[in-house]
Amino acid sequence: MGTKRVMLPVERVDLSTVKYEPEVIQAPHLTGFKLKLFVRIIETPLIGSFIMSLLKKQNKMVQLLQNTVIPEPPMFKPEFPPQEPETGVVVIDEDGKPEDRVEMALKFIPRHDPGSDRNGDGAPSFRYWKIRDYAHAYRSGLTTPSTVAENIISVIKEFNYDKPPTPLLISFDAEDIRNQAAASTKRFEEGYPLSILDGIFMAIKDDIDCFPHPSKGATTWMHEVRSVMRDAVSVSRLRSCGVIFIGKANMHEIGMGTTGNNPNYGTTRNPHAHERYTGGSSSGPAAIVASGLCSAALGTDGGGSVRIPSSLCGVVGLKTTYGRTDIRGSLCDSGTVEIIGPIASAVEDVVLVYAAILGSSPAERISLKPSPPCLPNFSSYESVNALGSLRMGKYTAWFNDVESTDISDKCEDVLNQLSKTHGCEIIEIVIPELQEMRTAHIVSIGSECISSLNPDIGDGKGLRLTYDTRTNLALFQSFTAADYVAAQCLRRRIMYHHMEIFKKVDVIVTPTTGMTAPIIPPSALKIGETDLRVSGYLMQFIIAANLLGLPAISVPVGYDKQGLPIGLQIIGRPWGEATILRLASAVEELCAQTKKKPASFYDVLKTN
Amino acid sequence: MGTKRVMLPVERVDLSTVKYEPEVIQAPHLTGFKLKLFVRIIETPLIGSFIMSLLKKQNKMVQLLQNTVIPEPPMFKPEFPPQEPETGVVVIDEDGKPEDRVEMALKFIPRHDPGSDRNGDGAPSFRYWKIRDYAHAYRSGLTTPSTVAENIISVIKEFNYDKPPTPLLISFDAEDIRNQAAASTKRFEEGYPLSILDGIFMAIKDDIDCFPHPSKGATTWMHEVRSVMRDAVSVSRLRSCGVIFIGKANMHEIGMGTTGNNPNYGTTRNPHAHERYTGGSSSGPAAIVASGLCSAALGTDGGGSVRIPSSLCGVVGLKTTYGRTDIRGSLCDSGTVEIIGPIASAVEDVVLVYAAILGSSPAERISLKPSPPCLPNFSSYESVNALGSLRMGKYTAWFNDVESTDISDKCEDVLNQLSKTHGCEIIEIVIPELQEMRTAHIVSIGSECISSLNPDIGDGKGLRLTYDTRTNLALFQSFTAADYVAAQCLRRRIMYHHMEIFKKVDVIVTPTTGMTAPIIPPSALKIGETDLRVSGYLMQFIIAANLLGLPAISVPVGYDKQGLPIGLQIIGRPWGEATILRLASAVEELCAQTKKKPASFYDVLKTN
Repeated sequence: MGTKRVMLPVERVDLSTVKYEPEVIQAPHLTGFKLKLFVRIIETPLIGSFIMSLLKKQNKMVQLLQNTVIPEPPMFKPEFPPQEPETGVVVIDEDGKPEDRVEMALKFIPRHDPGSDRNGDGAPSFRYWKIRDYAHAYRSGLTTPSTVAENIISVIKEFNYDKPPTPLLISFDAEDIRNQAAASTKRFEEGYPLSILDGIFMAIKDDIDCFPHPSKGATTWMHEVRSVMRDAVSVSRLRSCGVIFIGKANMHEIGMGTTGNNPNYGTTRNPHAHERYTGGSSSGPAAIVASGLCSAALGTDGGGSVRIPSSLCGVVGLKTTYGRTDIRGSLCDSGTVEIIGPIASAVEDVVLVYAAILGSSPAERISLKPSPPCLPNFSSYESVNALGSLRMGKYTAWFNDVESTDISDKCEDVLNQLSKTHGCEIIEIVIPELQEMRTAHIVSIGSECISSLNPDIGDGKGLRLTYDTRTNLALFQSFTAADYVAAQCLRRRIMYHHMEIFKKVDVIVTPTTGMTAPIIPPSALKIGETDLRVSGYLMQFIIAANLLGLPAISVPVGYDKQGLPIGLQIIGRPWGEATILRLASAVEELCAQTKKKPASFYDVLKTN
Repeated sequence: MGTKRVMLPVERVDLSTVKYEPEVIQAPHLTGFKLKLFVRIIETPLIGSFIMSLLKKQNKMVQLLQNTVIPEPPMFKPEFPPQEPETGVVVIDEDGKPEDRVEMALKFIPRHDPGSDRNGDGAPSFRYWKIRDYAHAYRSGLTTPSTVAENIISVIKEFNYDKPPTPLLISFDAEDIRNQAAASTKRFEEGYPLSILDGIFMAIKDDIDCFPHPSKGATTWMHEVRSVMRDAVSVSRLRSCGVIFIGKANMHEIGMGTTGNNPNYGTTRNPHAHERYTGGSSSGPAAIVASGLCSAALGTDGGGSVRIPSSLCGVVGLKTTYGRTDIRGSLCDSGTVEIIGPIASAVEDVVLVYAAILGSSPAERISLKPSPPCLPNFSSYESVNALGSLRMGKYTAWFNDVESTDISDKCEDVLNQLSKTHGCEIIEIVIPELQEMRTAHIVSIGSECISSLNPDIGDGKGLRLTYDTRTNLALFQSFTAADYVAAQCLRRRIMYHHMEIFKKVDVIVTPTTGMTAPIIPPSALKIGETDLRVSGYLMQFIIAANLLGLPAISVPVGYDKQGLPIGLQIIGRPWGEATILRLASAVEELCAQTKKKPASFYDVLKTN
């Protein structure tokens, strides 16, 4: 029996009484043998559920979900009130051909002077090759997709023989890459490339279908029960633009982790510091982009899985609005928090890939009624104007709740610069019920994950998952149906709070993560690791965009004292991708001069 | 561990291979002491959950929800594809005043010749007084609302001294009725009645707020934890039309039963046969209308709770489209299957009350995007025409799976008459996955119920519920979050099947219930009863309208050999209330001559 708590109707919550409460997670940090033992215990029938119920109680989940009267009805998926149209944007036709959308997007990004700004102006800073650099190189005959393909193949092979091995890809087929590159090279020879993305190399996270590769979700067995017959919708859209896929990128097993630790295929190393994690779950996609091997990658983001590794690896990652991209053909295509989003080294490349993949599924058009997709119009007067009047919401107590002040200081610095240079306004906001938000999210994503895994776990495959995953699954299995419904009632409250905030501000700004890339404990490599303190810091600012389906972007803003990348997160209004892309681009420009080359960087374009 | 089953994607299900499978429920029939003992056992911590898991396994719930790969993503609430507009209808403004909507509805129902058709034409049949009979009597000075109020009050008092007592109302306040009636009488004296509904008496089910009465949901304690400060939205709309509320009608405790058995306040008796149930959960509302005490009542329907008692008591009950009426202010206002709907003795009275209460909540307008509400235009050429071209879908194997052929024969008879007299077409259909539908429904409604009760159950109030309810709650508490999500994936499949059927037919017709009013076992009166065989028959045809949010109506078509009422159910397309009301009216006309007076009938209008 618990003590009943009654929440006020959400409209009557008095924000002036809200106090920031740092997250307190009570759970052991376990690696190696200790983790193995722990999993054995929690999987023991009666004792296991007893321990789980204790953990749930200690972390206030029982209090929040079962002993609280939540006056709001459940909101099972993001339900957005009608949105004002964005200003300074180009409306894109989501029914058209992907290659047409990409060409449209190309018209409205800043002018490109190939090569000129790379290490130009005598600046000591580093810059990645952009998609337009490749496009220019192919079109001017400086190199061919086939030549670049060979460079990439040789680097990937080298990675596989590394000590320690740094497995970027789970599925890789050199011949398949060569064939795609040859077809692209031929199109350039004949003078008919499919789009600006023709011959551009991309990696696809292992939970998104990319034919003919299997989709294992980084497990050892998913491909045995689920065969891949065709590309996922997003992949197919990119393929029709001429993109070359180098294979299936490594990830945290079934996406249920934030570090990228992976005992099945090896843990991907951070290109900036090999002894550190990339962050997850899209570990491979972020590392592949950060090390220069591909221009872009696709990841999925159900709890920061695109933004966290992007931040930790110093690249740009876009979490799209829920339903804006078509998630069919990914392992998490039944979820209420997951989306497919692009990772690239520059905002303009994210824009191009985003333009190619956007477009809601028919079912989502019925249930979500999305606003028409927009891209920022960088060249227009309205766009510059829109930036100037932009109001950035900042919840300072939360913003500063990070492991090292390097992070909050650097992010704040950039906000001040935006304010000074562009006239953006920083507005102090308060976000209530952050713990409720975290709880609602873990119950949602966990329950939906278990539901899709149940038939196979019941069939015995659960024991072939990593210990880390099994720890999570034991927790998720303890969630009751009523917990799930209660979590959705909380979701409606949290949505209300955010929609109220968005009446006063245009975006919410936070550091992307509460810590920079964590060290990989050597004991964690073979058996895995569960460390909720690290997860807590990595997911500190992530949840709202997933639980509420809001768009968010992580853009690099500099480095901490150890030289590890720091990301700034910009959270937008529903369907507000254009605004956050525009602001991210301004941030990128402000931080361009301080960019450092990662320890592992492969110049697959230049070496020709 | 189970044996994994993989469902085909729903578009690929081959209907020609579907075989009808009668429902097989494995559970004991328990009343009295045996029920009490059973509840004690299932509430014992470890043993209880073991028994529940056995019951779930035996009834294939584990197989369907956990060991089955369901390829569809979840559909948490009804998501309707865009609907063709109905023909022969009047579009109603849901933003206008309820009294204006009622007056609008009045214009389009058949012409009324007061008194002439009651026991006229020398016919032996019985007819209830209609709302327009009351309206005429008030306007022509034959009686006043205050006079009728006194008649009603004396009958209700008599009921309370009956042996056995037949408690129609849980909350009743003679002075409150007299005050409302006096105000209405005064309006008539002054010549300014509010609408055709002014002075019309209605009862409100005990789970819908009607100030100043408490809302107990027929429990003994709900009012201790939830106070009523104002009318529910629907009640308030009726009040502004001048309706007089006689109090809170009896019901199955928290609506979680189909018989109306109620050890807390006594079990309402069927006006046609006192030793029999009314059906539930809106037992009081249906009995009050059937015995002539009120013109209409409001019920809630989450699993047949409006239609089942309407059918068993020989009156008309409308289950509205999910979200068509505003459910705020009812105990089940967080559910995904429940609606508020009217019960009345005649279709035209259902139309008038429906016109008053319709109108989606602001949140539902965002998430459901309802089509504009429509009413049948009885006088128009198009309406008669629309009836002639109506295609009625009938799944014969299912239709005939009833306890007695009296039911299916009578219903089929009426369909044949509709075909002969009006030209409606009977089309044979197949509805696959009926067991999946039942499972998805019980998991949805049960989980949502537990979620809203959890804070109070945790606070110790669970032990103050009836044994019947506690049996249900023990089952509901065994549902996991993943079960809930899997049930929603099934919901999407069932929706697909029905939307495919609605490409070929305009309505689906079934008997409303698979049995007529069941006997009340004397041992069930004090302690309660759980009999899943009876529930199975009563809910046999009910579920689709709840799980999918479709509108449905039960209309009386005659009697079985024991003289117990039989109802025909007409299920419509999303937002298709006008069509099913039009068809129900035609059915009513066809069956008018066979109408019998209930054993308990009180002529509260005539006696003056």
